[in-house]
Amino acid sequence: MSENRQIIIDSLPTAKLTADNYKMISVPIPVPAAGEVLCRSLWVTVAAGARAGLQGSASYAGAPKTGVVMNGAAIARVQQSNDPQFTQGDLVVCGAGWQDYSVHSAQSLQKIEGNVAPVHHLGVLGTNGLTAYFGLLDIGKPQAGQTVLVSASGGSVGHIVAQLAKLKGCRVVGTAGSDAKAAQLTARLGLDAVVNYRSPDFRADLKAATPTGIDVYFDNTGGEILGSALFRMNEQGRIACCGVVSQYDTSTPAPGPKGIPGLLVNKRITMSGFLVFDFASRYAEARQQLTRWIESGELKPIVDEVQGLEQAPQAFVDMLAGGNIGTRVVKIAD
Amino acid sequence: MSENRQIIIDSLPTAKLTADNYKMISVPIPVPAAGEVLCRSLWVTVAAGARAGLQGSASYAGAPKTGVVMNGAAIARVQQSNDPQFTQGDLVVCGAGWQDYSVHSAQSLQKIEGNVAPVHHLGVLGTNGLTAYFGLLDIGKPQAGQTVLVSASGGSVGHIVAQLAKLKGCRVVGTAGSDAKAAQLTARLGLDAVVNYRSPDFRADLKAATPTGIDVYFDNTGGEILGSALFRMNEQGRIACCGVVSQYDTSTPAPGPKGIPGLLVNKRITMSGFLVFDFASRYAEARQQLTRWIESGELKPIVDEVQGLEQAPQAFVDMLAGGNIGTRVVKIAD
Repeated sequence: MSENRQIIIDSLPTAKLTADNYKMISVPIPVPAAGEVLCRSLWVTVAAGARAGLQGSASYAGAPKTGVVMNGAAIARVQQSNDPQFTQGDLVVCGAGWQDYSVHSAQSLQKIEGNVAPVHHLGVLGTNGLTAYFGLLDIGKPQAGQTVLVSASGGSVGHIVAQLAKLKGCRVVGTAGSDAKAAQLTARLGLDAVVNYRSPDFRADLKAATPTGIDVYFDNTGGEILGSALFRMNEQGRIACCGVVSQYDTSTPAPGPKGIPGLLVNKRITMSGFLVFDFASRYAEARQQLTRWIESGELKPIVDEVQGLEQAPQAFVDMLAGGNIGTRVVKIAD
Repeated sequence: MSENRQIIIDSLPTAKLTADNYKMISVPIPVPAAGEVLCRSLWVTVAAGARAGLQGSASYAGAPKTGVVMNGAAIARVQQSNDPQFTQGDLVVCGAGWQDYSVHSAQSLQKIEGNVAPVHHLGVLGTNGLTAYFGLLDIGKPQAGQTVLVSASGGSVGHIVAQLAKLKGCRVVGTAGSDAKAAQLTARLGLDAVVNYRSPDFRADLKAATPTGIDVYFDNTGGEILGSALFRMNEQGRIACCGVVSQYDTSTPAPGPKGIPGLLVNKRITMSGFLVFDFASRYAEARQQLTRWIESGELKPIVDEVQGLEQAPQAFVDMLAGGNIGTRVVKIAD
């Protein structure tokens, strides 16, 4: 292969994202300058948060642009290094985006070490897992015996949050978009209940699944699930605001939930938005703890692998529709 | 006077509250049993939060009822005491409601001591001032040099919050319902700016008044002001959710602000609802500090006194429409 395939953002979605918003092009493989490293991507991520980056200027992801390579983290093999810190064959995490080859400054690369399968550095040991770890433990602060609700509990972040909450001795309730997925998640993640948020009985089902109320809500979705969860929150409850996936794939975001701010006052609830980057000084600590739980078998990260770079757009569209469980990655080379 | 005048809730408001929702009746003066104290009210409160108690079952104030005396704290003089802790003539704070006489268990009374004018125990040294103190200092956590926004900054809680934030070395911006009131508040409270939230230019005015953004928002109103403030919040900002006065005097509360939860995530904002009762163990500390500030002249509590029990309903209606500055009380006896 002497060409670099790239998937670029061809147009911005005006309503729901489709694979047609992307196109694949071929360009020459880039050449690294002094201090730079040429990387060959093996897996690239398909992350719900990236949809926010296509949606306007309010996101932490910055304003959306067309004609650029779709962004996303990747696991890559060093192909050529002009920096002494890296050698050909090293595995690294880099912000490659959806393409075969990319050039990076040495200091922007994170070398992969340890015994955990490399692909997990896009999931449980990457941004997803770190987000779950700090969001649940530092923002949500669950206590053993309390009830934790996790929306999008089958998602890349949610399926880790749900397991961490079980590890902390909590009653854990998830949400999912179908009865079948709910049943599957209950079994695979060992959850106490998973509620189908698309059911007309969602509110009643959520109430039945949280008989003593909700102490911690880890919110990946916003929207109706947040609105319903607010009414089930216990006094002094904590809501960790992680993402708003219900509002990403649309050009007309819904208004906020009715219970805000009235219910926050009456129940003394704290809602805290957070971004994982604010915890960067503690990533090493978190990765060590997550690795211990993986090695002991207490934490079972799920990787959902799609084959082929050309599949990335559709894999992204399907994920936004709730079609997968675990961290979705696209394998693009061996 | 041998009768006890009472203002009772005659009907629940279906839209805006009016004085006709109340009626005055006369009943015999109650007789205290052993351990009880008969109190003669001198001032009764007219408090925005009490409107929530007329509105449904979601409030901490409980479900609304008709045929009962309108609730509210009072400053009263002990008329007859069947408990050794109190003597005729003692001044107390009690939950008398809108009536001349009431009977209380001795342990439910708070004796008024110290040199501050008794009426301030319904304002700056009562629930209003304590709410301002803990909400701003413990929930808002303002730092010198930061910008604090206070909605309803002329209100019973807001006018104290605004002054405490100035005492902490902050830039303090308030909101009010007219240009005239805004100008008056700026002058009387020494604020850096007060913005008229009813102006069509409110968003632009708020932006101009907060050139470096908002670090702490003390929210007494919810509604549109909260929605606008969210867009001016700085990263890691704190919103102390104290009340929702914009939504009390209506039967059709508005949906929540659009920026929730998206802006909370992007800016890592924390919104915390609180009730002053959760800080009961620290009331003495707060009253001491507030008293020092009053005595030094650094804190100037404003009392807005209306004359006559029969005026209480209209005084309440007018206050909900934003017609006053400071803590509104009704003087009903000397």
